[in-house]
Amino acid sequence: MEIFIHEVGLRDGLQMESEPVPTITKLQWTETLVEAGIDIIQLGSFVNPKIMPQMADTDELFQEIKPKKNGKTKFSGLILNEKGFERALKADVDLICMGVSASETHSKKNTGMSVSEALERIVNIAKEAIKLGKDIQVSVQSAFGCGYEGEIPEERVFQICERYFSEGINKVSLADTSGYAFPQKVERMYSRLQKMNPDAEFACHFHNTYGLGMVNTYVAMQNGVKYIETAFGGLGGCPFTKQPSGNVCTEDFVYMLQKMGLRNDINIGKIISVTKYACGFFVKDLPGYVYKIWREQ
Amino acid sequence: MEIFIHEVGLRDGLQMESEPVPTITKLQWTETLVEAGIDIIQLGSFVNPKIMPQMADTDELFQEIKPKKNGKTKFSGLILNEKGFERALKADVDLICMGVSASETHSKKNTGMSVSEALERIVNIAKEAIKLGKDIQVSVQSAFGCGYEGEIPEERVFQICERYFSEGINKVSLADTSGYAFPQKVERMYSRLQKMNPDAEFACHFHNTYGLGMVNTYVAMQNGVKYIETAFGGLGGCPFTKQPSGNVCTEDFVYMLQKMGLRNDINIGKIISVTKYACGFFVKDLPGYVYKIWREQ
Repeated sequence: MEIFIHEVGLRDGLQMESEPVPTITKLQWTETLVEAGIDIIQLGSFVNPKIMPQMADTDELFQEIKPKKNGKTKFSGLILNEKGFERALKADVDLICMGVSASETHSKKNTGMSVSEALERIVNIAKEAIKLGKDIQVSVQSAFGCGYEGEIPEERVFQICERYFSEGINKVSLADTSGYAFPQKVERMYSRLQKMNPDAEFACHFHNTYGLGMVNTYVAMQNGVKYIETAFGGLGGCPFTKQPSGNVCTEDFVYMLQKMGLRNDINIGKIISVTKYACGFFVKDLPGYVYKIWREQ
Repeated sequence: MEIFIHEVGLRDGLQMESEPVPTITKLQWTETLVEAGIDIIQLGSFVNPKIMPQMADTDELFQEIKPKKNGKTKFSGLILNEKGFERALKADVDLICMGVSASETHSKKNTGMSVSEALERIVNIAKEAIKLGKDIQVSVQSAFGCGYEGEIPEERVFQICERYFSEGINKVSLADTSGYAFPQKVERMYSRLQKMNPDAEFACHFHNTYGLGMVNTYVAMQNGVKYIETAFGGLGGCPFTKQPSGNVCTEDFVYMLQKMGLRNDINIGKIISVTKYACGFFVKDLPGYVYKIWREQ
């Protein structure tokens, strides 16, 4: 089984923290994650810095990391629209990530567009990126349910993916934005997608809202998902509530992989050192388990 | 799939809390768990109250709960030796639980006996219980690894179970005392045990030390395990460290079951009310996820 880690803590983790992390600190964390042997690191999103000041230095981060590239770790960035796409092209992002929500309400609130309008826009950007020879990953947000709408018809998710596939976009991530996924649904949806397009590569992105992030990730792996999006320390909880809706924790997931005989090339101690630094930085515990009991041997 | 919840919070949860819970409070929690529709509730262990004052009222709890039995929920108690067995008989325990550790070091520290000595003793008690028509469950502690010894040969666990089976003891629980289990091992061990004795009924007991409790429980279910031992709120962390080694959280597990269309007869809100009361009682958050965001609908 071939599994790749896509570390999203610097983007999905930090955008939820009210305290912005200085660029120099982000770079230290990134370099340590590179040393750990993480496959893909999402450095940030190309969004309006006035709306999301935590991501204001995304362009700079890509600039700074360039001389430190080792040819092994790739760096991804998230874009929401054409303006972000232009910035991502300038920043020479290795993997450009973009997506639409399967929920009309979520889509309207996030983009001001309906799902079908947003899909047209993203597909156009994706096609342009492919034409330029860029590596891209498209996602379906709220793929397993929506915090506003509740249940989302699975057919709607499949229709969005069908559109992606028909445009030759073959790297697709399902994001469980609200943490509503559960094992049977994960199995059902990925196995259906595999049948729809056996050539596609799938990613998963689970949140731990109801404590099911790890089991959902495991079931996704068992159903052919190769790219696992996680965040060091399980970062990602909303800063305004006690709701522990963080991402699946990178080092906890790597711990499980290594127990299963997979990815022994990854240095889990290095990931943990980033988590511990982040705990100190935010002056709080993070939701991960392994870092709390890890002793370097 | 038939799944039964064995709630161990009042025993495995409370024995780790330095603050003893008054009998009246334990009874309130128990009655609410009965109302929730929990299948088996472990009220405590029959141990020396000088060594474990948190369990000093186990006999009294069984006495108090007797008039409130509804014929649906069973009440279990843990025994370590003949003296505990006598007390359990007097208390009219529905399901008497006992076990041995697969780790020599753990066995010596816990019982002063080697694994084989402890096994003889437990088997003798179990046979006596069966003769008296009592329902019993035997366990193998440290079945997936040991905090002192590390790896435990799987053959040793199978030998202990083989001995149980050969004595006609068919209800067997594997306990991951130190939280070392991981999905492949869980699958391997339970599928082997099923083959050894297709008539046996299996239970699992996972701790969340490395964040894998829920995924291990899920994999156990997939491999025919019917009895799932969990604790409300995920109680069970050691009070002397920050190590979050609690049990799998009952309401989180029930939440997953219900998403899978199972056990919709259980009232999750009632379990959550016990967890919230316990958070207040101990003046701390517990590790569970679902109770933190639950809103009664």
